[in-house]
Amino acid sequence: MRRFLVIGHRASTSPTFPLDDLPGGAGRMDILLNAANAALHLAHGLRRDVEIAMVLLGPPDPPRLVRWLGHALRSYQPDIRSNAALLRRALGHGSRVERETSPGILASKASLEEALDRLGPAYVYLKESGKDIRGVDLPVDSTFVLSDNQDLTADEERAVLARGALVVGLGPLALHTDHAVALVHNELDRRLPWT
Amino acid sequence: MRRFLVIGHRASTSPTFPLDDLPGGAGRMDILLNAANAALHLAHGLRRDVEIAMVLLGPPDPPRLVRWLGHALRSYQPDIRSNAALLRRALGHGSRVERETSPGILASKASLEEALDRLGPAYVYLKESGKDIRGVDLPVDSTFVLSDNQDLTADEERAVLARGALVVGLGPLALHTDHAVALVHNELDRRLPWT
Repeated sequence: MRRFLVIGHRASTSPTFPLDDLPGGAGRMDILLNAANAALHLAHGLRRDVEIAMVLLGPPDPPRLVRWLGHALRSYQPDIRSNAALLRRALGHGSRVERETSPGILASKASLEEALDRLGPAYVYLKESGKDIRGVDLPVDSTFVLSDNQDLTADEERAVLARGALVVGLGPLALHTDHAVALVHNELDRRLPWT
Repeated sequence: MRRFLVIGHRASTSPTFPLDDLPGGAGRMDILLNAANAALHLAHGLRRDVEIAMVLLGPPDPPRLVRWLGHALRSYQPDIRSNAALLRRALGHGSRVERETSPGILASKASLEEALDRLGPAYVYLKESGKDIRGVDLPVDSTFVLSDNQDLTADEERAVLARGALVVGLGPLALHTDHAVALVHNELDRRLPWT
């Protein structure tokens, strides 16, 4: 199973974040939702063998973890505004006990470290200076860790590396998170046996 | 210069298309605007050596051509809602004479054939069955032709192929337009001399 984990450093943890201002008032929520689309959508249909997890660290009640499970999602659209509404519902659940707030969407109060422990089993940390993905032997069941438009903090990076993450780069230029997800998918798709 | 041309078969040609319903009422305008983001945005800043052209074929007044020139754009955001407002302004100009409706945005009434003739000089048609891009020698100044969520019609395909387009594929799965653009960029970025 392919998993992605995206850290939203300023992403709102309010269940009433503004749908009309995802980049501003919601703390670059557009980045997280575009990354989810890149993780889950094919031209025709969903990638059912994929999970994307978001760690939201903005005010007022961080940290939160929201997991989107491709095999169980229903009513998941390419429209990030619609998906933002699902995310708001997930943020309404602030308990440490994970709960399914909509089909295929799990919410809880959890830190990055706790999120990492629920994912795995292998980790790949996407970083510009990493080893070129085209030359890396990637574990089959990997969680790919990405950031929003801010680099991981030293503590966050330590948490990822402490779990034995491979450090992998995608090319010569720094990209938006969703485009990085699309590149990872393409590289892995090419390695599958298509018969 | 890298150029992309995206055909929006149902994309609205009304200067008052709804900003709150880009996927539905505006005719999958979200696809065109996400493709523009993938074409123009890096993590930090714009790709200045890129142009993306949209051919809009939906009601009420098709065909329209809107060109976004990376080197001349100002106030271009990652937020597709903001960019949709720029696109609405461009659609307010329905003359066959091309005019700059905002910095870096050119609008006119023009067909796909006319659009192709203003772009080029070489053409690459992205199609699932095409030759794998990783093994293709791509001309330096190419226009990459993509569709929205509908395949090109037979007539459209003929117009592209009549201009000697290479037919190139990106991988084993059909992708959203914006993710296809991201893959093309990455492949070309990797071929540049980074010294």
